[in-house]
Amino acid sequence: MGRRDFLATSSLSVAGLVAGSIFTPSANAQTKNNTTMKNNNIIGRGPFPAKGMAAYSPEGPLRLMDFQRRAIGPKDVAIKLHYCGVCHSDIHTIRQDWGKITFPQIVGHEYTGVVTGVGSSVSKFKVGDRVGVGCIVNSCRHCAECEAGHENYCLNGNIQSYASVDRDGTITQGGYSTFAVIDEDFVINIPDSLDLADAGPLLCAGITVYSPLRHWGVTVGKKIAILGLGGLGHMAVKLAKALGAEVTVFTTSADKEADAKRFGATNVVLNKEKADYSAYKFAFDFILDTIPYEHNIKPFIPLLKRDATFCRVGVGKVQDDISTGQMSLVMYRAAIAGSNTGGIQETQDMINFCALNKITPEIVKVPMTRVNDAWKDVFERKARYRYVLDLQTI
Amino acid sequence: MGRRDFLATSSLSVAGLVAGSIFTPSANAQTKNNTTMKNNNIIGRGPFPAKGMAAYSPEGPLRLMDFQRRAIGPKDVAIKLHYCGVCHSDIHTIRQDWGKITFPQIVGHEYTGVVTGVGSSVSKFKVGDRVGVGCIVNSCRHCAECEAGHENYCLNGNIQSYASVDRDGTITQGGYSTFAVIDEDFVINIPDSLDLADAGPLLCAGITVYSPLRHWGVTVGKKIAILGLGGLGHMAVKLAKALGAEVTVFTTSADKEADAKRFGATNVVLNKEKADYSAYKFAFDFILDTIPYEHNIKPFIPLLKRDATFCRVGVGKVQDDISTGQMSLVMYRAAIAGSNTGGIQETQDMINFCALNKITPEIVKVPMTRVNDAWKDVFERKARYRYVLDLQTI
Repeated sequence: MGRRDFLATSSLSVAGLVAGSIFTPSANAQTKNNTTMKNNNIIGRGPFPAKGMAAYSPEGPLRLMDFQRRAIGPKDVAIKLHYCGVCHSDIHTIRQDWGKITFPQIVGHEYTGVVTGVGSSVSKFKVGDRVGVGCIVNSCRHCAECEAGHENYCLNGNIQSYASVDRDGTITQGGYSTFAVIDEDFVINIPDSLDLADAGPLLCAGITVYSPLRHWGVTVGKKIAILGLGGLGHMAVKLAKALGAEVTVFTTSADKEADAKRFGATNVVLNKEKADYSAYKFAFDFILDTIPYEHNIKPFIPLLKRDATFCRVGVGKVQDDISTGQMSLVMYRAAIAGSNTGGIQETQDMINFCALNKITPEIVKVPMTRVNDAWKDVFERKARYRYVLDLQTI
Repeated sequence: MGRRDFLATSSLSVAGLVAGSIFTPSANAQTKNNTTMKNNNIIGRGPFPAKGMAAYSPEGPLRLMDFQRRAIGPKDVAIKLHYCGVCHSDIHTIRQDWGKITFPQIVGHEYTGVVTGVGSSVSKFKVGDRVGVGCIVNSCRHCAECEAGHENYCLNGNIQSYASVDRDGTITQGGYSTFAVIDEDFVINIPDSLDLADAGPLLCAGITVYSPLRHWGVTVGKKIAILGLGGLGHMAVKLAKALGAEVTVFTTSADKEADAKRFGATNVVLNKEKADYSAYKFAFDFILDTIPYEHNIKPFIPLLKRDATFCRVGVGKVQDDISTGQMSLVMYRAAIAGSNTGGIQETQDMINFCALNKITPEIVKVPMTRVNDAWKDVFERKARYRYVLDLQTI
């Protein structure tokens, strides 16, 4: 669910200037410094050869691309990647639903792996550590938001894991790839009890729903609704249940009812046009809408208690509006809000919470070569519930 | 700004059944009981003859109508009316912007006067007290909202001062009239230091902006924006200033700048299409939108700080939507909300706050016979800033 800051210091306006510079033809993937491959492990200080599945156009299939990751800086962690979740944001970005990007582009912001090298000033990680990277790989660090741990709301525009302008002027490339070099302050520790494949989707889908659930006080005694039971929605149900809330799921897929209950929902309601939701009038302390495309939110506003919030974390196309009758907001002081992933410490907290409570996403592992099929399934709403690319299969 | 609960137990669906019953031809205005007129004062227990300016159709002018107010019940206060403010809601209601109503209908929910009689169980008021009545004249009293003092959010649908079904089945008639009988729990005490004409507009315009200013924590050190400088907006500026906030006014009327500053605004910005508001990006802890017709709110969302709320208290037509780009809400966790007048205790608090801080609306007194001219001016945005009808002139 991470997305580039399209409003402010956006990569979109300058992306064309620099994107080509990091790409090298496949034949020249071996870099000129002392980096070598040994038993399929990358050793050295970089720059590092890497392979990824890149989009070359908004419509076309992803194809294998050789590129390189930067040399390890003092604060950098080099990571051999194992898994990367497939997020709807990946597709939105390539289809340019959120603005123009520069091709080729590798996406993916739910990736995990093992540390192979660290910079001279790195204090939090060592070689062999199990780590993950989510939506954000850098931020200004000095604005009020960064200082408060809200790198996701950096006032100067954070650097997203892909399709953002990195501090060296290149365009960031995501986790559908074999290797990454990331500033340690944006690397998440993965507890031993969490499988690296399971941990991937937590880094975007997980934090994107965990953050608003915590922000709006979802806890024991609260009744909440989750709209949509996809990658984000199913994590929201599990997390809200673990936080103690009573969860009602609204889904357009009748066949997901049993799953919703297995994930922790008390009630499951079929979400369809003109359905009668009057049994749920004034029922909810909070509604979290995870549906990733434009849809009618009006029927849900009267289901809020006074002062309750309807928070949407999904965004369809950037130009899509969210609309409701103004009178419906006035009547019981309801609010419509949004929420954008989470900060780094908050992401670590969420990972720890999941490890402690044994919360994992429902994943289907797919080899990297089948990424295009996985995207098709996601777009056709067939994912049950998150595809995770096996990056070792490149 | 009060409005009938169009969602729930609305008067609109049953209004036609009962409306005619309370009206008597003008010639028969003298009621059959012992109520008499003496020195233009009404004495007795009622029912009471009353005169009001009624609408007979959505478009037509208001015309004088004789009707009667109910006899004093045990908890009732009989009030000889002195003044009534002219609110945009009055016009919205008669024009049926918020749904169908039954004609003839007398509106007005900002009225003040002097108590002429009290019921046997009344404990808060005595004859001669200076009092006022705002948007609400009754509520269920037993729902969670009523018990918490939020009669304005009564879950069973409160009874509005006009165009609502009263507990006796009649349609409530408002304050463009000479006399009223109201349950004491919905009567506001007017401190001696407040002029009865000044107090009128506080009872809707005042409380409708005071309630959200307090709810969203407007106080010393906060920077807020007020959109619109009409009846509600000018009160919002004065109240927010008194609460200690730094106020920026956005107005479409360039000629209101000096007034805005006189009321307490630090900055005044001309609100027009495609204006550049970038100087105010991330500037505000709260934005209160008082504009009473549909308009574009999108330029204002980026002016909110993280987690800040854009609250709209104005409503145009009931079918009007409020829309913004979903992405803009996501980026900094902004919220769009509404707010509906205030509770009774909160209204008394607001009146006391105004008396203590010498806050009064900018009013223009007009004789009741000129109400139609006043409405025309309000509709044409010529009011500076609130018309108050002199009810003694009927």
